[in-house]
Amino acid sequence: MPLVVQNTPRTDLEIVDGLSDAGVATVHEAQGRTGLLRRDIRPIFRPARVAGNALTCEVAPGDNWSIHIAVEQAQPGDLLVVVPTSPCDDGYVGDLLAGSLLVHGVRGLVIDAGVRDVAVLTEMGFPVWSKAISAQGTVKETPGNIQTPIVCAGAYVRPGDVIVADDDGVVVVPRERASTVLEAARDRVASEASKRKRLNAGELSLDLYDMRGRLADRGVRYVDYRDSP
Amino acid sequence: MPLVVQNTPRTDLEIVDGLSDAGVATVHEAQGRTGLLRRDIRPIFRPARVAGNALTCEVAPGDNWSIHIAVEQAQPGDLLVVVPTSPCDDGYVGDLLAGSLLVHGVRGLVIDAGVRDVAVLTEMGFPVWSKAISAQGTVKETPGNIQTPIVCAGAYVRPGDVIVADDDGVVVVPRERASTVLEAARDRVASEASKRKRLNAGELSLDLYDMRGRLADRGVRYVDYRDSP
Amino acid sequence: MPLVVQNTPRTDLEIVDGLSDAGVATVHEAQGRTGLLRRDIRPIFRPARVAGNALTCEVAPGDNWSIHIAVEQAQPGDLLVVVPTSPCDDGYVGDLLAGSLLVHGVRGLVIDAGVRDVAVLTEMGFPVWSKAISAQGTVKETPGNIQTPIVCAGAYVRPGDVIVADDDGVVVVPRERASTVLEAARDRVASEASKRKRLNAGELSLDLYDMRGRLADRGVRYVDYRDSP
Amino acid sequence: MPLVVQNTPRTDLEIVDGLSDAGVATVHEAQGRTGLLRRDIRPIFRPARVAGNALTCEVAPGDNWSIHIAVEQAQPGDLLVVVPTSPCDDGYVGDLLAGSLLVHGVRGLVIDAGVRDVAVLTEMGFPVWSKAISAQGTVKETPGNIQTPIVCAGAYVRPGDVIVADDDGVVVVPRERASTVLEAARDRVASEASKRKRLNAGELSLDLYDMRGRLADRGVRYVDYRDSP
Amino acid sequence: MPLVVQNTPRTDLEIVDGLSDAGVATVHEAQGRTGLLRRDIRPIFRPARVAGNALTCEVAPGDNWSIHIAVEQAQPGDLLVVVPTSPCDDGYVGDLLAGSLLVHGVRGLVIDAGVRDVAVLTEMGFPVWSKAISAQGTVKETPGNIQTPIVCAGAYVRPGDVIVADDDGVVVVPRERASTVLEAARDRVASEASKRKRLNAGELSLDLYDMRGRLADRGVRYVDYRDSP
Amino acid sequence: MPLVVQNTPRTDLEIVDGLSDAGVATVHEAQGRTGLLRRDIRPIFRPARVAGNALTCEVAPGDNWSIHIAVEQAQPGDLLVVVPTSPCDDGYVGDLLAGSLLVHGVRGLVIDAGVRDVAVLTEMGFPVWSKAISAQGTVKETPGNIQTPIVCAGAYVRPGDVIVADDDGVVVVPRERASTVLEAARDRVASEASKRKRLNAGELSLDLYDMRGRLADRGVRYVDYRDSP
Repeated sequence: MPLVVQNTPRTDLEIVDGLSDAGVATVHEAQGRTGLLRRDIRPIFRPARVAGNALTCEVAPGDNWSIHIAVEQAQPGDLLVVVPTSPCDDGYVGDLLAGSLLVHGVRGLVIDAGVRDVAVLTEMGFPVWSKAISAQGTVKETPGNIQTPIVCAGAYVRPGDVIVADDDGVVVVPRERASTVLEAARDRVASEASKRKRLNAGELSLDLYDMRGRLADRGVRYVDYRDSP
Repeated sequence: MPLVVQNTPRTDLEIVDGLSDAGVATVHEAQGRTGLLRRDIRPIFRPARVAGNALTCEVAPGDNWSIHIAVEQAQPGDLLVVVPTSPCDDGYVGDLLAGSLLVHGVRGLVIDAGVRDVAVLTEMGFPVWSKAISAQGTVKETPGNIQTPIVCAGAYVRPGDVIVADDDGVVVVPRERASTVLEAARDRVASEASKRKRLNAGELSLDLYDMRGRLADRGVRYVDYRDSP
Repeated sequence: MPLVVQNTPRTDLEIVDGLSDAGVATVHEAQGRTGLLRRDIRPIFRPARVAGNALTCEVAPGDNWSIHIAVEQAQPGDLLVVVPTSPCDDGYVGDLLAGSLLVHGVRGLVIDAGVRDVAVLTEMGFPVWSKAISAQGTVKETPGNIQTPIVCAGAYVRPGDVIVADDDGVVVVPRERASTVLEAARDRVASEASKRKRLNAGELSLDLYDMRGRLADRGVRYVDYRDSP
Repeated sequence: MPLVVQNTPRTDLEIVDGLSDAGVATVHEAQGRTGLLRRDIRPIFRPARVAGNALTCEVAPGDNWSIHIAVEQAQPGDLLVVVPTSPCDDGYVGDLLAGSLLVHGVRGLVIDAGVRDVAVLTEMGFPVWSKAISAQGTVKETPGNIQTPIVCAGAYVRPGDVIVADDDGVVVVPRERASTVLEAARDRVASEASKRKRLNAGELSLDLYDMRGRLADRGVRYVDYRDSP
Repeated sequence: MPLVVQNTPRTDLEIVDGLSDAGVATVHEAQGRTGLLRRDIRPIFRPARVAGNALTCEVAPGDNWSIHIAVEQAQPGDLLVVVPTSPCDDGYVGDLLAGSLLVHGVRGLVIDAGVRDVAVLTEMGFPVWSKAISAQGTVKETPGNIQTPIVCAGAYVRPGDVIVADDDGVVVVPRERASTVLEAARDRVASEASKRKRLNAGELSLDLYDMRGRLADRGVRYVDYRDSP
Repeated sequence: MPLVVQNTPRTDLEIVDGLSDAGVATVHEAQGRTGLLRRDIRPIFRPARVAGNALTCEVAPGDNWSIHIAVEQAQPGDLLVVVPTSPCDDGYVGDLLAGSLLVHGVRGLVIDAGVRDVAVLTEMGFPVWSKAISAQGTVKETPGNIQTPIVCAGAYVRPGDVIVADDDGVVVVPRERASTVLEAARDRVASEASKRKRLNAGELSLDLYDMRGRLADRGVRYVDYRDSP
């Protein structure tokens, strides 16, 4: 029996927005290289960057009924995360549903399946990360769970976890760790800024990271082309 | 022995253009969700939208001779549809052939294989939906059939069927059904306009489509997060 | 034991730049249809076109240490070519490394794996041809060979071979053949210009290439639609 | 509205069985290299060889209701051909349905999707050619067309066309051409037998097919290793 | 910092063995169609069937150090579940490790990556479900977590959850639900036995499941071939 | 212009056979983890193990003429290695060609494309490693190079290099290194035998390889389940 879970926890939007500023690659590093979704989930337009509270939604294959149910559960700052119960890459969301999601405060969509009307979604500026683009519409016969924990594109996502998405892909941050991860992400951003300055001035990363000793330890040999095997 | 079939029927261009205006997703719905090509056939640039009379062309793998033959059969408003007799994703069409197709009135290309010179094709505004982009050129050794029925990317296409292509993909409309499908497509566009208005005003699709009763029938339960399993 | 080979030969940059002007499809033809990389190596932004001396680099799976070593070997006009010793499509290069490569004169990157920070790389105008985009970072534990012959995306590449990359893909030209191939490429460009003129004036390629006799030899038959099988 | 078409034509089983004896590769050649299904349709056990009259069946994604309807339309010597209306590789057929198909005379299954219970199907000796093996079951919500023309795995199949399947793949023979194709297939089998004898006796195919003159025409050069470029 | 979690809960082996008897497809149904791993995880030999307590193991890409650590944590009746932290399909397990796993009571391996020495593993009868077969060996540089929750091939797996694997694929049963699921699975097996008997006697599933009324409701029409559109 | 290079060097068959005994995974390790072909090149039957001198052959897409030429160049102990000049997975070799190859001493086939008649090839015991199985036949229009260096499935292969193939995949050993690699492979086999004995007696690889100190260095922590995060 499908469940619609209400009053789920959400992460403070200031934290969510801070994670968005840091970007996916940095957030992924900052939480110990965990939480990345499969890399075949790609943005339908670029550049795109967004973060939001996961609003989770299971759909039956070729059936988008659940998404209509999910809209009612949306709160401003949410990001819809959709996974089919078995792989089927139809276009579950088109411009009508996207408009409805936008007007209810949903910031974007991550879907381990397909979307359609992408020319209109691009004009609307509604960001979508999907596995496919497909004109194939869906039926409304079988509802699925809303706001329960799901596995989407290889990552475990619970309602109110933070989803960060940009041109590099999508990462999920567990809500309990969100503020810690934000702090670590900001540290990385600061540290990278100083490294960037030195690298752009021509310093070699071999020196910046003091790698020459370890290279020798690993037996790296520098040889002249005429002496190479 | 390869055949070049001449004087094939074509669909009236007013109908063709009307179907283009409706777009792929709407046309697909309007004809009962049939006729979609495999979704790995993607535009080489976006946005792109075109419709035309199918000018069908079989090519041998790695051989584009047939396409040269097809140009002579082209009429203004045609859209070239190419399929290799066995899968081989070389670049069968480059900027020379594209220029020749354009000057003979061909509106675009759908190919279950590859194309090349895509930077030039993009500048020329010659729209292509293909499975691949490949610099690999082809030979001219083995001709294939022109203007015979083919299966392209999973869809059955006959000369003069209408091909509609946009950012969502490609759909084929059998020529006998083209005017009926156009009518149904226009009905859908009108109906969607009124729905869009209500959804953008904040109405929920659950109410707009009167789904709450059926949801209850299916046993959907609303529970509080603290009571969820 | 990993090797860093120094003082490798390079191809004269005038030849390199000439090959860039000709483009991948033309260069591929001009050298007898050899040297193309697998076509799933795609540019992260389009349009993009570059050529350079191959600076070859093997990386361990999920490990980009070698790339830091390679930067020191770079000379202006080089193009970095990276292949993992076993397939792993993480993001081996991000904006810090890309900035460092740029400042040392590297013109771009071809990698049979993934990159990250693609929004920044796009803003920087640092062209990359890759198999994947991935936010997944890498470690620095296992160095690999620098400036030794490698197989990248199905092509054999030696240091100082010329890599030409554009929207159609990537091709490698052996350095010994570079000037001969450039000459042949320029001949093709000239020959294509005159053909383009005639085709754009409406001449059929069947006539331009004098194909009608060979078509008859192959048994191609022209039939009327009402008489077709 | 889904259709179940009754009293469809079928091909004489003597012809069907003759085509089975010839095998897929030979039949494909004998009908001019047409009718092959995509090669990712593979047998669930090997060796396997069967031919039958196509009993065509469209299923909704993740929904096998149509197959239950199709069983009633089966006649001895039929071979069930199933295609989902959009790609979804669930396990549409398991051991219960397979047993039911067997008892109604169906000789096997070709499906552009998945099957399950393959260990039992293998023990039963019920041959299946499928795109996937999947334990994922299906629902019974949306019926599709039975015994209408379909495109399955890239081939156009009508009720009563002959399906031939073996370890090499699957081919469809239009019923009107079945007896002609059988004759051509038998000619090939006879001709191949005499060639096989000569080749196994050590004769070179270059001589058997008299290819040496054409090789010289194509400019093939024999060079010694020490003189090779 | 990598963790090795000890004294994790395990599921009673009588329950585990009962689930093995039911098989993957039945268990998947019995727990509401949840818990299936991606279907590209396939057995290296068939037939194969096993169930065990999940012994979870994260590996770095191209690095099997964690698996050596995991062996020490094994208890009789465990089944090793391995996932790389980023996709890399090398051969993480060969015959030496497999022998060591066997002698410590591990019943088999599920890995979202590759294995090697499969001829020997087949002779040993050590069942493996993997995404790839690869001779590419791995290093021992970077340890990962042992016995922590993981996402493997799209499913969420915790230590001591039950893994059931057979020719149809792999399913995970949360340990808290294992005995309930076993009961439901046994009910299904019993119910299927009686259905199988009736179907094998020739009864149609349309009648057995009483579907004719619902078919009419859905508008299914039976037409004669001569009257079909 | 296609070349047929004659009198190419070959590796002594005693060395070749020794490498076969060691197997692919061991040989790959023994030569520093180089030379592996892409892992989608799989045997058409299992178990299978063979080694031979590479007889290299380029084919045009969908064209097997070159293979007929190659037969004449075969010597006992050769193993045919075929690569198309652009990707096209037709069935280039069937039972006639396989019989001819066998009678001229060719031990097997590695092909970065497809083969057909696999049921017969299996009965004949002619081992093939291929990317695909396809009933699609080929033409004889365009010859390619025989016995020149090629890149096959990502590996650089020259005539007379040793190809070793078994259930794990395919590896190439440069002929200059063959005897050295054989020696290293035999050392590995001997060393593995003693390890196998100790592991099968229950010793942990953590102890056998003395890994506990390094584990501590890497910060691996052992925690109780009740204390885990």
